[in-house]
Amino acid sequence: MPSAEIVAVGTELLLGQLVDTNTPFIAGELARAGIDVHSTQCVGDNCERIAAAIRTALSRADGVVMTGGLGPTVDDLTREAVCSALGVGTEIYEPALRAMEATFAKFGRPMRANNRKQAELPAGSVPLDNPRGTAPGFIALASGEQFVACMPGVPGEMKPMLIEQVVPLLRERFGARETIVTRIIHTIGLGESEIDHRIGDLFRSSENPKIAVLAHEFRADVKIMAKAPDAAQAESMIAPLQREIVRRLEDGVFGYDADTPSSATLALLASRHQRLAIAESCTGGRIAAALTSVPGSSQTFVGAVVAYDNSVKRWELDVEAATLERFGAVSEEVARAMARGARTRLGADVALATTGIAGPGGGTPEKPVGLVIFALDDGTEPSRAWSFRLDGDRETVQRRATTTGLNLLWRYAKGQEP
Amino acid sequence: MPSAEIVAVGTELLLGQLVDTNTPFIAGELARAGIDVHSTQCVGDNCERIAAAIRTALSRADGVVMTGGLGPTVDDLTREAVCSALGVGTEIYEPALRAMEATFAKFGRPMRANNRKQAELPAGSVPLDNPRGTAPGFIALASGEQFVACMPGVPGEMKPMLIEQVVPLLRERFGARETIVTRIIHTIGLGESEIDHRIGDLFRSSENPKIAVLAHEFRADVKIMAKAPDAAQAESMIAPLQREIVRRLEDGVFGYDADTPSSATLALLASRHQRLAIAESCTGGRIAAALTSVPGSSQTFVGAVVAYDNSVKRWELDVEAATLERFGAVSEEVARAMARGARTRLGADVALATTGIAGPGGGTPEKPVGLVIFALDDGTEPSRAWSFRLDGDRETVQRRATTTGLNLLWRYAKGQEP
Repeated sequence: MPSAEIVAVGTELLLGQLVDTNTPFIAGELARAGIDVHSTQCVGDNCERIAAAIRTALSRADGVVMTGGLGPTVDDLTREAVCSALGVGTEIYEPALRAMEATFAKFGRPMRANNRKQAELPAGSVPLDNPRGTAPGFIALASGEQFVACMPGVPGEMKPMLIEQVVPLLRERFGARETIVTRIIHTIGLGESEIDHRIGDLFRSSENPKIAVLAHEFRADVKIMAKAPDAAQAESMIAPLQREIVRRLEDGVFGYDADTPSSATLALLASRHQRLAIAESCTGGRIAAALTSVPGSSQTFVGAVVAYDNSVKRWELDVEAATLERFGAVSEEVARAMARGARTRLGADVALATTGIAGPGGGTPEKPVGLVIFALDDGTEPSRAWSFRLDGDRETVQRRATTTGLNLLWRYAKGQEP
Repeated sequence: MPSAEIVAVGTELLLGQLVDTNTPFIAGELARAGIDVHSTQCVGDNCERIAAAIRTALSRADGVVMTGGLGPTVDDLTREAVCSALGVGTEIYEPALRAMEATFAKFGRPMRANNRKQAELPAGSVPLDNPRGTAPGFIALASGEQFVACMPGVPGEMKPMLIEQVVPLLRERFGARETIVTRIIHTIGLGESEIDHRIGDLFRSSENPKIAVLAHEFRADVKIMAKAPDAAQAESMIAPLQREIVRRLEDGVFGYDADTPSSATLALLASRHQRLAIAESCTGGRIAAALTSVPGSSQTFVGAVVAYDNSVKRWELDVEAATLERFGAVSEEVARAMARGARTRLGADVALATTGIAGPGGGTPEKPVGLVIFALDDGTEPSRAWSFRLDGDRETVQRRATTTGLNLLWRYAKGQEP
């Protein structure tokens, strides 16, 4: 397979103030076009360093795809660096000059001398039109079959140039090639080492399809990536592996590709004709927010009460004053009462409740920061309740409690006792 | 100034499926510590390529800061690659092994043989504790003064390890250096071009302190970065600029550095002794989640009702059936009734309500997708209401509606009529 490296240019990317989303976008498009990316780099606005990055990339790959540094200012050095790395001069690309003049005329702005610089491309380059901005891109051809494709850094200019011009040119250059299809199997509630234990033999030394495990918090994705001449063949390579992985991880697999724990749970509840309500204390609305991010969630999700103050637990969820008094707000008893209250008050079939201590304050030796209690009530007696000790700062505890709550709901909806 | 390169490891970063936010975070912390970053790299899970990236980085910089590839699976190759690049063997780091055993025991999970691998560090390394996960980090020392610092890829484990352990060690190693102090001035509700118009003369050609504007959705941050031998000198360079910028943007400045619209709003309401409730329909819990992310929010935030189904608006927020019937759920009248209901039912002094059409379904010519209506009720008559047309897909509309709601709340709390 042909390979390319991506080089993003811009000092602002090295100061931590801007997240580089161009590189993953380019990487995704190249993967789909069957071009391998083994490495990416990001360099500041320094001609020597940019040239060095190009030379390093060309020593390992068939080409370089670059973004950034094509503007008109003294900081825009990509053209110069490409010339230096490839040992070529520049030449004025007249159509780009004309196009720029037209753009400036259209916006009634004076075209300055430094804009001319944008039409000076490395000699022998294939120019790339930029109808959405002033800086043209270009593909410079190095010795042999190697190339250096340069695009602006503005995402709105770069993305169409990549899709409409660069990728087709590269596809053509490398002939009909392979494509990569990725299937993501989403799991929840299984540890990374547990997954490794169950399917390690499948992904150890997997090459094509390649299998990778990506751990999130309390969730993990298993990715199967197949390279084949076309998507149908890639799918047929993925299918048997997917079946086997799902068989082994069955108790944790909630969905595929774009599925989320929320969408999977709502789909299961809908198929059971159960409507859902939530009562949240320490998660503060996060579980409701996750559920309502799913289009059509209003069919199944009735609503939620964020019962932060005890008075809200008392009056909106019918938690008895004596229960709050005797067991405290963070207790199984209160969690159960909140779940029952949410279910009955909001007219749902099943309700989940959370109460806990997100921190940093409010912890005691008996009820430390990170203690989170869940209850689930569907009208059967007794209702279910669980206690967890979740590590981390406030944000982490809230996030982990949200995922844990969704995991409990999903397992319930699946008919698998959590 | 000492310099470092950042190397992020993970094939998933090269397939376009994950945006690397670790690299900019590390870059920002290193800049603050006065360590220059001239280049960053990202490589897949391939031992030779990781080792090559380390060697390249060490050929140009004083050290390498790495993230990712420290887990227990066969894909986790950073330890091996560091050994290969530096030409050293591994040794078991006993305290890490003990810590891992304790972590597994605490969660009642079996520790598998492959987890042991995580305690095998390059010989002579300084180990880095990882109280939030199982994989310890380490700083391997290369010849001369060079170092290779390796941290996990999970942001929640990496960030505290970087701040609490790696940066202090590097600061010490390189002695007293220049430091960069950054002040962030947070604005909400001012457009980027409005900000440019008001303070453009200050940041054009600013060098030290450098001024930059970073636009978010409906929010923008103005950053002032000063380089000086110590923090006090940097602060004194920042102070006059900060005063001038705040003077010019005053109607939009809600806070500094770690402040959020939620924390600013809650602090203002607390100073006015006003307790807050929320009634959310289309934002589905997001405003409550944003408010409860603030430590101590329980002092001011009473609770919220996520009234997704009309029955919840009717019965939990006392919206009259006739109002729902006559004006529809997405109307100023219903928004006002929801706000009044939340305030009175939850016992708050002021309440904000949202109702709208997040999409993709549910839009009509009169009430299209993206229409979001807000009402604010503090008991004075008439209550306030606003309608917005927000562009974007479901997630974007929900996110923009959340920011808009927080902007309205903040302006109210500030006593500045929204």
